[in-house]
Amino acid sequence: MADILHRIGVKSASLDDVYDALTTVEGLSGWWATDMRGETEVGGVLQFRFLPGGFDMKILELHPAKHVLWEVVDGPEEWIGTRVSWDLKQEDDFTIVLFKHEGWREPVEFMYHCSTKWATFLMSLKTLVETGTGAPEPHDVKISNWH
Amino acid sequence: MADILHRIGVKSASLDDVYDALTTVEGLSGWWATDMRGETEVGGVLQFRFLPGGFDMKILELHPAKHVLWEVVDGPEEWIGTRVSWDLKQEDDFTIVLFKHEGWREPVEFMYHCSTKWATFLMSLKTLVETGTGAPEPHDVKISNWH
Repeated sequence: MADILHRIGVKSASLDDVYDALTTVEGLSGWWATDMRGETEVGGVLQFRFLPGGFDMKILELHPAKHVLWEVVDGPEEWIGTRVSWDLKQEDDFTIVLFKHEGWREPVEFMYHCSTKWATFLMSLKTLVETGTGAPEPHDVKISNWH
Repeated sequence: MADILHRIGVKSASLDDVYDALTTVEGLSGWWATDMRGETEVGGVLQFRFLPGGFDMKILELHPAKHVLWEVVDGPEEWIGTRVSWDLKQEDDFTIVLFKHEGWREPVEFMYHCSTKWATFLMSLKTLVETGTGAPEPHDVKISNWH
């Protein structure tokens, strides 16, 4: 099993602001995928659609201002059954986001790609909360021939 | 053991251009650390200096236009003994870089930070080769209270 890990700090933002960006349609469509819908309660499924395909995330846990846990229930074969967790805490003047996409069966080349891509989307989340404007798909930062 | 993985594609660049950015003082100081010196042959040690400290990388392998392998011989305690590998290949109109920072003993919070930070430095490498200007420290993208 292999995991993708990331850490960012959102400056001058409250835990609630960052939590909202991870748990509302308005927030999630502002930094990850413009084409996004779904039920935002525990047990609900969030549907993110990208040009090449999409991801369906079942919400397993929601602890306001603290923790969010999703399970991938549809999408690329390598993603299905993996989990995405978000942990929030305050440090200095920052809300720190600890991100983990865990449970990859093999460190395939697609995992290398997704690791870098997650980093750029996390920077999009940071920018969204700090400035009001993120870079969700299709306005996302392109990193390679795989977009 | 835990690894950081990343993948980028450098558009309209040759394998040699990207290899040069990974193996010369001019290249490495153009995307990672402005304050950088060292011996660039196998067995040499590259010294990268950042505001909070630095990293010394011993060059273990150099296969032109293909593969570079470093071992961290000095720096943060969590980094010492880990290895950084770079694999290059051509795909479509891109030179693909597969990056691995392997052998972390534990997935500590600093590893989460370094994973995101490596992603931003890889984007700096991409921009350097594509445009002639990267964003090496101290001009690097700040991602959190840890810089």
